[in-house]
Amino acid sequence: MMNSGSRSALVASGKKYRTRGISRRVSRITISAIKEMPLLASRIGGCVSLGQGIPSFPTPGHIVEAVCRALRDDPDSGKYTLGPGMSELRQAVARDLGARGIEADPDREICITVGAMEALSEAVLTVVERGDEVILPSPNYASHIEQVLLAEGVPVFVPLTREDWQLDVESIRNAVTPRTKAIVLCNPHNPTGANFAEADLRALAQIALENDLFVISDETYDFLVYDGQRCFSLSTLPELRGRIIATFSFSKKYAMTGWRVGYVYASEEILDQMMKIHDAMSICAPTVSQLAALAALQGPQDCVEQIRAALTRRRDLICARLDRLPDAFGYVKPRGAYYLMARYRFPGTDSMTFALRLLHEARVIGIPGAAFGPDGENHIRFSFGGAEEQIEEAFDRMERWFAGSPFSR
Amino acid sequence: MMNSGSRSALVASGKKYRTRGISRRVSRITISAIKEMPLLASRIGGCVSLGQGIPSFPTPGHIVEAVCRALRDDPDSGKYTLGPGMSELRQAVARDLGARGIEADPDREICITVGAMEALSEAVLTVVERGDEVILPSPNYASHIEQVLLAEGVPVFVPLTREDWQLDVESIRNAVTPRTKAIVLCNPHNPTGANFAEADLRALAQIALENDLFVISDETYDFLVYDGQRCFSLSTLPELRGRIIATFSFSKKYAMTGWRVGYVYASEEILDQMMKIHDAMSICAPTVSQLAALAALQGPQDCVEQIRAALTRRRDLICARLDRLPDAFGYVKPRGAYYLMARYRFPGTDSMTFALRLLHEARVIGIPGAAFGPDGENHIRFSFGGAEEQIEEAFDRMERWFAGSPFSR
Repeated sequence: MMNSGSRSALVASGKKYRTRGISRRVSRITISAIKEMPLLASRIGGCVSLGQGIPSFPTPGHIVEAVCRALRDDPDSGKYTLGPGMSELRQAVARDLGARGIEADPDREICITVGAMEALSEAVLTVVERGDEVILPSPNYASHIEQVLLAEGVPVFVPLTREDWQLDVESIRNAVTPRTKAIVLCNPHNPTGANFAEADLRALAQIALENDLFVISDETYDFLVYDGQRCFSLSTLPELRGRIIATFSFSKKYAMTGWRVGYVYASEEILDQMMKIHDAMSICAPTVSQLAALAALQGPQDCVEQIRAALTRRRDLICARLDRLPDAFGYVKPRGAYYLMARYRFPGTDSMTFALRLLHEARVIGIPGAAFGPDGENHIRFSFGGAEEQIEEAFDRMERWFAGSPFSR
Repeated sequence: MMNSGSRSALVASGKKYRTRGISRRVSRITISAIKEMPLLASRIGGCVSLGQGIPSFPTPGHIVEAVCRALRDDPDSGKYTLGPGMSELRQAVARDLGARGIEADPDREICITVGAMEALSEAVLTVVERGDEVILPSPNYASHIEQVLLAEGVPVFVPLTREDWQLDVESIRNAVTPRTKAIVLCNPHNPTGANFAEADLRALAQIALENDLFVISDETYDFLVYDGQRCFSLSTLPELRGRIIATFSFSKKYAMTGWRVGYVYASEEILDQMMKIHDAMSICAPTVSQLAALAALQGPQDCVEQIRAALTRRRDLICARLDRLPDAFGYVKPRGAYYLMARYRFPGTDSMTFALRLLHEARVIGIPGAAFGPDGENHIRFSFGGAEEQIEEAFDRMERWFAGSPFSR
């Protein structure tokens, strides 16, 4: 049964209110359904999650052990670092970027941040003025929308192609106006699992150059592509220097979501400005997490290969399970990250209603597609970051639920 | 010799520029001299610091050991927590606040944050609209000024009393206009070391009530008062519920500056709004640091007493050394925190010039008073968080420097 009480608890369902005295920038933001669905599920109990993207892996033991050694041996391990982060870590980051074809000066062009999220927020706050338009592919990671609203910018959603969730370069070009300030792009793409084509990314860079736009690039999933593909990074393009702000994360690559550590790469001119917000927001990234990040970069890399292999198996599993429900779902096979957007075949049912029924009646958590922008409607986002048993259990439940013809009632 | 090259490197010296395409909010912020002076000093080399407030103590061993155990034993220790933080930690925080007379619901009124700084930024961004006025005592912690500018608010500086750095309640009342939205208050006070009188704090609460203002309270140093005094918390006043946003930190009390963990206490109505920014900025505070904070609250508290005792000795030492330089400095004896504002007796020398000469010629780092607002001019902030040998060495150098009559040259 649809529970309207639960539904009204979800701000993401469209309810927008202004609490007395609360600033416009905050009033305009809705709480991400990615965060609300698990909270709701925790009140229901017994749910299985294809919701938030927390991979099941623990942080590798060699990283944990390096942190414990540093905490015991180094009396400075509990103290602030310099604002941009530990010098040794910035150098290791620059070497790592260099190996991927991205030339970065560790002293002037890199800042260690509280995950990629701090970096993304600060990037948007640094370049987006009230009323500036920001182009976002749609569907798109919900937090990027929040970040544009936080800066009082205007999100301009440009649909991805429906058949394969790729960039529609001509539509992006047509969406540019004199007020356009930036394009925010996540690749590999959350929530669709797309890995954007190099030719399209190069064309997008050209649009940015021709129209004097900043490119804010979320490269959180850069290591995670399937089927022997490569992921093309906009940060490798020399012509974008001075207008690209690229953010990276240790969260997914090294199973370190809770450590809250990532970094930003930008020109000195831009980074100097971003550092003002970094100083006012966080002073520096957590030292203990910087130590973990350093251990991750300096240690063996087979943990990354293991994560990639496990997620490949999970991707194949979720696709196989979806293929057994052709009357319920259509989808595009993910080529990167660990999400997919399943298009449910129940005309007239909005994605919040669908997600809430799935939650209440099948006890499966998925994220309503509308949370990812207008073109996410009629979809539900499934994460396949969880363990295989979890994916199996979720689909067992959904199969039973669909067998009861819930939408014909 | 005054080095004009170095000086122009200091944005805080007054140079304000707008980089092409950078948002107004960021352009208006100057980099805190608190952060710039140590960077400058690192290029000079051989300097001794009375600058940034990093106490010399390492994080207590029992906290470190509890963290190492959790990292090894709990596979979730590397993963995101819920946005507001670990439930167990919020409950421990609520108990701790309760013991201090502050009633807080751990599920609705507390959020664990990336230090008090994240909480303060988000508080200001949540209640301050572009053009809103925010009352700040002056001198005042530089980051509070940055945070108001980040929200595009207008800082309205109200001088503290000169003889003892106390609140001038009548001046605060007179500074209120129809555009005033909030008062930001740090007590015990950085940078002056004042512990504000309870009667004045109650009067300030009354002003907030009468004029429908928010009170943003930075209680980072709440445990650190000297001479057997108490620190009065505005958060204990029931009449401020719904309009106070109070921020607390583990950084100084448990020698945990690098862990970046603190928390905010506010009404559910306000906190729900702040959580939107928290989600877009950091997702959650670092799990490892939340584990450290939990160990700090649950473990023995004698480490806090040891820190307080050591800082009392350092306070007495810096006062004794200042008393030996009466021709150079006047000051108000600190009653809390670990800073003081020394008024130097060299008419016509601005605080940046003074601080840079001290740095270049005496190799001593102090923070120019102008960084703390207009009423900080003609002062230099000294921190006595450093080890006693460091304080002695800094004053030995200054005594030799003053003996050379640098200002008569």
